[in-house]
Amino acid sequence: MDKKKIVGHSEERWDAIAKVKGQANYTGDFSFKHLLHAKILRSTIAHGYVKSYDIAEAAQMPGVIKIFLPEDLPHHLYSTAGHPWNLDPAKRDIEDRTMLTRHVHVYGDDIALVVARTELQAKKAMLKIKVEYDEYPVYLTPEAAMAPDAMRIHPERENAFASSEVGFGDVKQSLKDADYVIARHLTTPVQQHLHLENQIAVAYQSSDQRWTCISSTQIPHICRRIVAQANGIDWSQVRVKKPFIGGGFGNKQEIIIEPLVVALSRALGGRPVQIALTREETIAYTRTRHAISYDMKIGVNQDGHLTAIDCDVLSNQGGYASHGHAVGGKGGTFINALYRADSLRFSAKTVYTNIATAGAMRGYGMPQVIFALESIIDDAADKIGMDPIKFRQINHQPDGFYNQLGQTKQRDFLIEQCLVKGRAAFHWDEKLAASQAYKTGVKRRGVGIAAFSFGTAVWPFGLETSSARLFALPDGTFKLQVGATEIGQGADTALAQMAAETLGVPFKSVIRDVMTDTDLDPYDTGAYASRQTYIGGVAVKKAAEEMKQKILKRAETEFKVQLEHMDIVDGNIVYRADGDLVTTVKDMAMQSYYDWDTAGSMETYSSINVHHNSYGSGCSLAEVEVDIETGQVKLLSLMNVHDSGKIINPLLASGQVDGGMAMSAAYGLNEELLYNKAGKPLNNNMLDYKLPTAMDLPDLEGVFVESQDPLGPYGNKALGENPDVSPAPAIRNAVKNAIGVGIDKIPLTPELVYNQYQAAQKAAKGDL
Amino acid sequence: MDKKKIVGHSEERWDAIAKVKGQANYTGDFSFKHLLHAKILRSTIAHGYVKSYDIAEAAQMPGVIKIFLPEDLPHHLYSTAGHPWNLDPAKRDIEDRTMLTRHVHVYGDDIALVVARTELQAKKAMLKIKVEYDEYPVYLTPEAAMAPDAMRIHPERENAFASSEVGFGDVKQSLKDADYVIARHLTTPVQQHLHLENQIAVAYQSSDQRWTCISSTQIPHICRRIVAQANGIDWSQVRVKKPFIGGGFGNKQEIIIEPLVVALSRALGGRPVQIALTREETIAYTRTRHAISYDMKIGVNQDGHLTAIDCDVLSNQGGYASHGHAVGGKGGTFINALYRADSLRFSAKTVYTNIATAGAMRGYGMPQVIFALESIIDDAADKIGMDPIKFRQINHQPDGFYNQLGQTKQRDFLIEQCLVKGRAAFHWDEKLAASQAYKTGVKRRGVGIAAFSFGTAVWPFGLETSSARLFALPDGTFKLQVGATEIGQGADTALAQMAAETLGVPFKSVIRDVMTDTDLDPYDTGAYASRQTYIGGVAVKKAAEEMKQKILKRAETEFKVQLEHMDIVDGNIVYRADGDLVTTVKDMAMQSYYDWDTAGSMETYSSINVHHNSYGSGCSLAEVEVDIETGQVKLLSLMNVHDSGKIINPLLASGQVDGGMAMSAAYGLNEELLYNKAGKPLNNNMLDYKLPTAMDLPDLEGVFVESQDPLGPYGNKALGENPDVSPAPAIRNAVKNAIGVGIDKIPLTPELVYNQYQAAQKAAKGDL
Repeated sequence: MDKKKIVGHSEERWDAIAKVKGQANYTGDFSFKHLLHAKILRSTIAHGYVKSYDIAEAAQMPGVIKIFLPEDLPHHLYSTAGHPWNLDPAKRDIEDRTMLTRHVHVYGDDIALVVARTELQAKKAMLKIKVEYDEYPVYLTPEAAMAPDAMRIHPERENAFASSEVGFGDVKQSLKDADYVIARHLTTPVQQHLHLENQIAVAYQSSDQRWTCISSTQIPHICRRIVAQANGIDWSQVRVKKPFIGGGFGNKQEIIIEPLVVALSRALGGRPVQIALTREETIAYTRTRHAISYDMKIGVNQDGHLTAIDCDVLSNQGGYASHGHAVGGKGGTFINALYRADSLRFSAKTVYTNIATAGAMRGYGMPQVIFALESIIDDAADKIGMDPIKFRQINHQPDGFYNQLGQTKQRDFLIEQCLVKGRAAFHWDEKLAASQAYKTGVKRRGVGIAAFSFGTAVWPFGLETSSARLFALPDGTFKLQVGATEIGQGADTALAQMAAETLGVPFKSVIRDVMTDTDLDPYDTGAYASRQTYIGGVAVKKAAEEMKQKILKRAETEFKVQLEHMDIVDGNIVYRADGDLVTTVKDMAMQSYYDWDTAGSMETYSSINVHHNSYGSGCSLAEVEVDIETGQVKLLSLMNVHDSGKIINPLLASGQVDGGMAMSAAYGLNEELLYNKAGKPLNNNMLDYKLPTAMDLPDLEGVFVESQDPLGPYGNKALGENPDVSPAPAIRNAVKNAIGVGIDKIPLTPELVYNQYQAAQKAAKGDL
Repeated sequence: MDKKKIVGHSEERWDAIAKVKGQANYTGDFSFKHLLHAKILRSTIAHGYVKSYDIAEAAQMPGVIKIFLPEDLPHHLYSTAGHPWNLDPAKRDIEDRTMLTRHVHVYGDDIALVVARTELQAKKAMLKIKVEYDEYPVYLTPEAAMAPDAMRIHPERENAFASSEVGFGDVKQSLKDADYVIARHLTTPVQQHLHLENQIAVAYQSSDQRWTCISSTQIPHICRRIVAQANGIDWSQVRVKKPFIGGGFGNKQEIIIEPLVVALSRALGGRPVQIALTREETIAYTRTRHAISYDMKIGVNQDGHLTAIDCDVLSNQGGYASHGHAVGGKGGTFINALYRADSLRFSAKTVYTNIATAGAMRGYGMPQVIFALESIIDDAADKIGMDPIKFRQINHQPDGFYNQLGQTKQRDFLIEQCLVKGRAAFHWDEKLAASQAYKTGVKRRGVGIAAFSFGTAVWPFGLETSSARLFALPDGTFKLQVGATEIGQGADTALAQMAAETLGVPFKSVIRDVMTDTDLDPYDTGAYASRQTYIGGVAVKKAAEEMKQKILKRAETEFKVQLEHMDIVDGNIVYRADGDLVTTVKDMAMQSYYDWDTAGSMETYSSINVHHNSYGSGCSLAEVEVDIETGQVKLLSLMNVHDSGKIINPLLASGQVDGGMAMSAAYGLNEELLYNKAGKPLNNNMLDYKLPTAMDLPDLEGVFVESQDPLGPYGNKALGENPDVSPAPAIRNAVKNAIGVGIDKIPLTPELVYNQYQAAQKAAKGDL
């Protein structure tokens, strides 16, 4: 009677077979009669105003149904950011956009829509529209947009539209008190999500005269609200359905095309209208990871004691506010979560520019700040000649630390164990020793480490709610409906494991369905912030516990065995004492449907509001080989060690870790979305935007320091984003270890590494 | 603050606009990639055995995927009858069929299946299959099938496979005691439902590797069970979805093609497979109304007192048991529900024959027994020279009568009021007087009446369960999910009215969805037995009452007004005392989603088990003109008067009444499915099967004697089937009143009327 065999076991994804067999339907797989296709006409300038459109020729093109200019669609202000609504207007996202605009804020801004019978017809017609612009100055960086004479990108507010400062102690004094002060200006690039499935949505009027939108979204319930707001209709007039999704990584935590397809269907008599972005559009015109720069100083004593961490942050928001300062302003809390210092100051500004709008992306600010922090921390260790792992061991926060900035007691905070386990599992000392043989010659080797902390979900900074519904089918299986959103990450499988575990039935007895339908599925804010198993799990557990009680209550009534003396094991209702069979779940389910006197189908529903947060932690360890003649960095090995509480499904967890490591390694080495001076994206395609292939990566190793988190519903805490945080700085530190140059910028392209190495050589020679 | 304005008001059907605009999707409207089509090869004999198939040529036809013979599909025994499962094996429907059969029981039996890429290809290939039979004797009537030397149609049981007898008192003695005994042999025809949308179903393997069947069914949850049984798989492996339906009238309370499409998809790798029956197949090879004969005797005294009702019944079941004796055995309870007599005997047999299988059809046995009863009752009134309405007034059961055969106290039983109201509203006496001018000549006029009783739902003969789910959307609207099945009758609209009424919100604030999905919607047995508003209404009311409490509880917590001092009116939460506003439902709904401390979305679920039955009653009044030279009966006017409790939606109720009256008028005058001696259907098309058009019918008048039924959730009771019961005998009695001949058979075709009139004239002359 092992009751813990389902949670913690690598159950097969419930959708695995369907995906192999091609039975998984994504948004583009749905068939509609008379489907119309829309293409977005995009501005060919990054900042300005559309003076005039000439649509005469385009309107005559074959298949064209209608061309929409900004004045043809509703122009309610809204935000595309996927946050829960806030009853306090002051805490809502900045609403700074309409569906179409004559006022161009970014290159590729949505200035018109063409609807035609086929996608190709729409595209051909779109290319015939002629546009005249008034051009405004283009600002690519926060510094440029903050210049005293810079024009406001949004007239309603300053370009530096948000700022914040957190911390404690007297940073200036602490820096003065330090034996050493290390100062760095660290910068991070624009990265794009590159989810497999591009943005796609289709909308139509349903039989109840409401508006159904099928969309590849991470946030169906929030999508409903934003679509309604953008269209100026009641929220309940929108129904969102989310089928299978080919990834999102935060880009689908933005509601970008859904308001448009609903608006177009509304304008076209309810006919189904689809927008499917191309890869080129997705890369350049959806959302990106914020490029953020950090002016960072730390004070350190010779014994390793950190006196101060001081940080000024500039976050490049791009043309619209979107998630805005929630990303750029993040960091202080998490620096404090990870390291003790006598004082801390984290001061951040988020600034409009004319590059692509930045938004949510896996890690949500943490890859940036951890790159900065773990670079300078590593440099501090170097400065005092201390082993970098030991330096982190001296300075990390202890288990049980109360983080006043996060208003959270960090229980089960196992960074120490991660560092110890990482050192051993990675064979750090052996690799470090071996690298000594590669400190001269063309190929240089080195090892690096970076640590991180990561919160689970968004409490206390945001609302954390979720819901689950369970009902018993007549044969003793259970349908599980959750608000939590499966986007390919395996949430559905993990949540079904939790339900089966708590119910005491086999994993296969819990039926899941990929579709999230805001008209049928319980409420949850969606897939982001590594919250699904932690918050959704609370709802699932509660619904399952109540269902178990209902089943046992039936058995008690029928068999006169007191409820507390029974348990459910593998679908059987048994005596707790000796495991003898009382009856089966199936029999009680049949009775609930068909008993002459007591029939009443068994259903439970939970809707929960979580007021806690569990901090995870971990580290990455990297070994690199740098070719000093080309600047090429070869990643020899990479390991992540994770303190993520109980692992619900080890195989799925490993998949998450592998994916995150690859994403962060590429962040450190390859990926950057580039613009010319006019703000035009230069590499928005998969040939020029360097995404690593399997050939570019070593075998990735994910290691867990498992525990039972006291707050996570099944002892679990965040794992979805954590793996994407620390590999980049670990690689940066390994490169430094290899070539003796700490580079303050990623990606570590060959050009950058070569130039920095050469510059360091020159400087060293000049010093001599 | 009128709280009763929604129930009782003719709210517009929520799906009205969609149906006008063509947005209502029926099963055939769903698009599938690579949909396969199946055609059923049907036997060309009515009784026998398939010795051999030659499929060689058919298999080579273009587009053919595969041809299935009986041995290629599972051959689990099952019943197509749509009854709830019974935990007692003795009370289950007779399982006497497999999906395909070599043993032919009816003309058109399912002997093979052809699957091809298009429907036409499947049909063309099907026509190339050659079949050799062993032919057995064909029995078209119960009498023939019960002959001592008759072969068993199903070897496992006698052809007269079910019988029953109910009653009380000593019928023989009562008949002896009567002043007069009237004896009649009354017969009814085979009628077909002629729902607008033919049977259609499609099945495919869904992403969870289970089997989804989209079907035009009245009983989605029962369909799931029968499909699983026929296929020999767990019930939960089947998911049934019911979209818009173009009527059913009981024919879709049978699971006929759904097992086949699931079996075919299972055999073909999960590809979607559709079967869409043609009109010709639907008429001849689905289900029909049982042709039932009644040997009836009643004893009556000169003062009008009924001494006895004695009845022997033979029900022609056709080739498979289906709903079987539940239809033919019905009657005794309802005769007793309507009329007092000193004694009653109702003895019935249901008999296999080789005509099309009879099953559920609107009225479910009542049109037959009421035709018989109300013919002979009318003849008895004639016999003693009493006004036929007065005769019924003397003999009907009183309000509050305990019907021991139905185990039900007939509260709110208003037949007296119906008869009184009918006499006045129909202008019976004036019409009767006016008809005296038409008692000679070619055109003869007369008036007739027939009364009926009708139970609501199936308790205590069957299980009555239903469920409902309500949840609040953020803007203060509510999604209602019910198990009750919308099949075109307007159940969804009526149930939404009930929810709005109880919640205290506008009708438009309750959102319904036509789709019933066994994986998502609450359990209910389905649309039959006029049970939807009566049983489903209990579930809706309970869920709505609980939701109202949840909303008020939130208001109490927030505004400190005691719950019992508040009410909800038109979406506002008000003080009961003076109607002053406390807050709005919308505000409480928003709070339930977004309040920092108390967020938790509001959902309620009810699953109920009803142990009562409310008897409705009513009468039909008809005026006819008979051409004695042709036998043509022209219906001049027809009125139904209904005791159906509270009318939820008068306009929808009138629609139900009009449709039922037309169906029963045609039953009396036109409709009959005919067979040749070999059992081949002769008129299974809409040219030869005479369905009345608007031209054939007078304006139909439906009148209600409204009341508040004490058991119905909103004072309501059955109305769905009631209108289809008494028009036929009222017409028969009007014809008798016109020409002086009581005809014991329907339909009253010109040929029949002419022959009977001529025979009566000859007999009268012979008498002289």
